[in-house]
Amino acid sequence: MDESLSRQNTGFMPYLVATSQILGVAVLAITGTWLLHYRGGFSWEGQGQFNVHPLCMVLGMVFLCGDALLVYRVFRHETKRATKILHGALHLMALVISLVGIIAVFQYHKKSNIPDMYSLHSWLGIVTFSFYILQWILGFILFFVPGVAFAYKSRFKPLHVFFGIGLLVSTIATCLLGLTEKVLFTKELKYSEKPPEGILINALGVLLVAFGMVIGYIITREEWRRPPLPEEQALSIDFKTLTEGTDSPTEP
Amino acid sequence: MDESLSRQNTGFMPYLVATSQILGVAVLAITGTWLLHYRGGFSWEGQGQFNVHPLCMVLGMVFLCGDALLVYRVFRHETKRATKILHGALHLMALVISLVGIIAVFQYHKKSNIPDMYSLHSWLGIVTFSFYILQWILGFILFFVPGVAFAYKSRFKPLHVFFGIGLLVSTIATCLLGLTEKVLFTKELKYSEKPPEGILINALGVLLVAFGMVIGYIITREEWRRPPLPEEQALSIDFKTLTEGTDSPTEP
Repeated sequence: MDESLSRQNTGFMPYLVATSQILGVAVLAITGTWLLHYRGGFSWEGQGQFNVHPLCMVLGMVFLCGDALLVYRVFRHETKRATKILHGALHLMALVISLVGIIAVFQYHKKSNIPDMYSLHSWLGIVTFSFYILQWILGFILFFVPGVAFAYKSRFKPLHVFFGIGLLVSTIATCLLGLTEKVLFTKELKYSEKPPEGILINALGVLLVAFGMVIGYIITREEWRRPPLPEEQALSIDFKTLTEGTDSPTEP
Repeated sequence: MDESLSRQNTGFMPYLVATSQILGVAVLAITGTWLLHYRGGFSWEGQGQFNVHPLCMVLGMVFLCGDALLVYRVFRHETKRATKILHGALHLMALVISLVGIIAVFQYHKKSNIPDMYSLHSWLGIVTFSFYILQWILGFILFFVPGVAFAYKSRFKPLHVFFGIGLLVSTIATCLLGLTEKVLFTKELKYSEKPPEGILINALGVLLVAFGMVIGYIITREEWRRPPLPEEQALSIDFKTLTEGTDSPTEP
């Protein structure tokens, strides 16, 4: 079993996975440095509460969601069940952390009398997060609740994968909009004079795009898909016969 | 031949293609309306010259590039050569139009003493456009210059397709950043009071994302790929034998 799996050609995938992790950690480190060094750090009061928002969104919706997409490519020798649980656990962390980030900004706006939901950043963010919740609910029902027909799962899976990547892309676009808003709202920054903080934010934006591109590339290579383990293959054929076969044993 | 092609299951692809075109035309109409009705229209002087920039970028880099990606899915019964020429022609129009758009904004900045290249929009835009030029050059050499080995073409094609979609996504993200910048630079607009122009721009941003998502979905469905015509299939097998075969007739 292990032999047949290790023979599968994953090409330079391990290098790309390493690159994605370096980019992801760099993105987190730059976000943290920016907010700590230039924007006064974190708290649950005033500007510090606002700062919780970008950190949580980048950690939850970008880094953890991005890594959740990678688990099926990276853990090729584990059982599907274990990999699925890891995928779900990463998304659960992502969901909780990003909820904290969203609550932080709405509370900060309320306390500071700043209007909500007027900008493209907020519109795209809410649309993306709503679809993320929908993806969560449908994904949970179809892939975690026992007894859901194999036919539904296999029909829904390509959609789940497409929307997974689509949501990551949309999240990254929302982050870039948030960075641009923040930098233009911060008058004392003098963005047009290319201050170090402006350069740092632009670099963060470009690295966020690079992170999304590398993850997107790894996920969309058909030849790098995790092959089913021999016992899964036998099982899936059984399920197929049960759910799709014309001579189904449940029929009279 | 025609019969076997028409039997191929394209599912609801025609509806999605129609949706993409409705979204594309809506995006162009809203961009035009915004710039004509709210921003003083087009000219090669002052604000009118700036306005040429968003219109050309949305028309060239979003609409025409998006449609160029679709031709292999839509024109399934034409020869590969004809489809390739249409793909190239759309990208040539996109290149010329977006160059006009880029020249417009740099000239406007110069005349108005506005600094260049300090914002995330400009950084991401330049990175995206540079990769677009690179994609153009490599694509032209590999797919239009005769005599390039089949082995190179088939190895490069998945990369060309991935970067095609990646560039469209990156372009759309750049557009959203441009819209956000413009709306925040336009002080008299009072974005936070949700004026009609602000709502229009947000709607434009969301529709741009929807356009990209629909195109991305159509392009990434393996089952909707244009199948090779029977004569192409025979030809490609010949080429494969010539370029990859161990018993190549050119060898002594």
